[in-house]
Amino acid sequence: MTLTDDPCPIARGLACAGDSWSFLILRDASQGLTRFDQFRKNLGIAPTILTRRLAALTEEGLLEKRRYSEHPPRDEYVLTEAGRAFMPIIVMIGAWALRHRDRQASVRFFDGETGLEVKPVAIDSVSGAAIGSRPITLGVRT
Amino acid sequence: MTLTDDPCPIARGLACAGDSWSFLILRDASQGLTRFDQFRKNLGIAPTILTRRLAALTEEGLLEKRRYSEHPPRDEYVLTEAGRAFMPIIVMIGAWALRHRDRQASVRFFDGETGLEVKPVAIDSVSGAAIGSRPITLGVRT
Repeated sequence: MTLTDDPCPIARGLACAGDSWSFLILRDASQGLTRFDQFRKNLGIAPTILTRRLAALTEEGLLEKRRYSEHPPRDEYVLTEAGRAFMPIIVMIGAWALRHRDRQASVRFFDGETGLEVKPVAIDSVSGAAIGSRPITLGVRT
Repeated sequence: MTLTDDPCPIARGLACAGDSWSFLILRDASQGLTRFDQFRKNLGIAPTILTRRLAALTEEGLLEKRRYSEHPPRDEYVLTEAGRAFMPIIVMIGAWALRHRDRQASVRFFDGETGLEVKPVAIDSVSGAAIGSRPITLGVRT
């Protein structure tokens, strides 16, 4: 599947971060994890897969690699602006599951300033309507 | 990776529709496609993979299988409420790519009522702040 140059932006977005590991790495990066071993331990991911996913997310410009030690050479990974812009998607996936796949002792989302639980909703900033509350058609602007 | 019962709802959501094909099938379903051959042609997907993904999305309750012909037996697939609730996520992925992976003649999103281009944004309905504009912490409610 080659989605990178697909006319549909949904496909192009998925080309950048379209598998579960990528989403979960971005989630962990948003929570302050930066180092290979931190991601590996938190995700329980095989090192070879983590190496590939970090390289792909860096290549796609969602993570930026920064050297934090010269001896021995060690890099860390931090979210770029494009990577931070992916956060609402990830939070919306979590909000969907809290509604449709809830379980006891689930992790939830809290506002870092107020401490209140966040209730994410996607709206169309043009009409003010909730996305999904009325039909959306996909098309090329003429 | 077993995400189905993960404490984090982001992981649980990804367990239901965490690969690109699943997202694209849901996209197509939101645009009115219902039949196996419609999905297959529009996605250019191998029939074996499409069969597996449709079965998984049905099993997860995002699609509902309905028999539309008895002779020969033929089923179609329509979004459930949980499947429709996934739409904002998919539209947000598209909005991300329109901003960060734009290209000429890209498909865009239009409001079915006004015909105006939709500009999706995720907000916290509690604080009114855009998701991503301030820190969000993940935790278990105490």
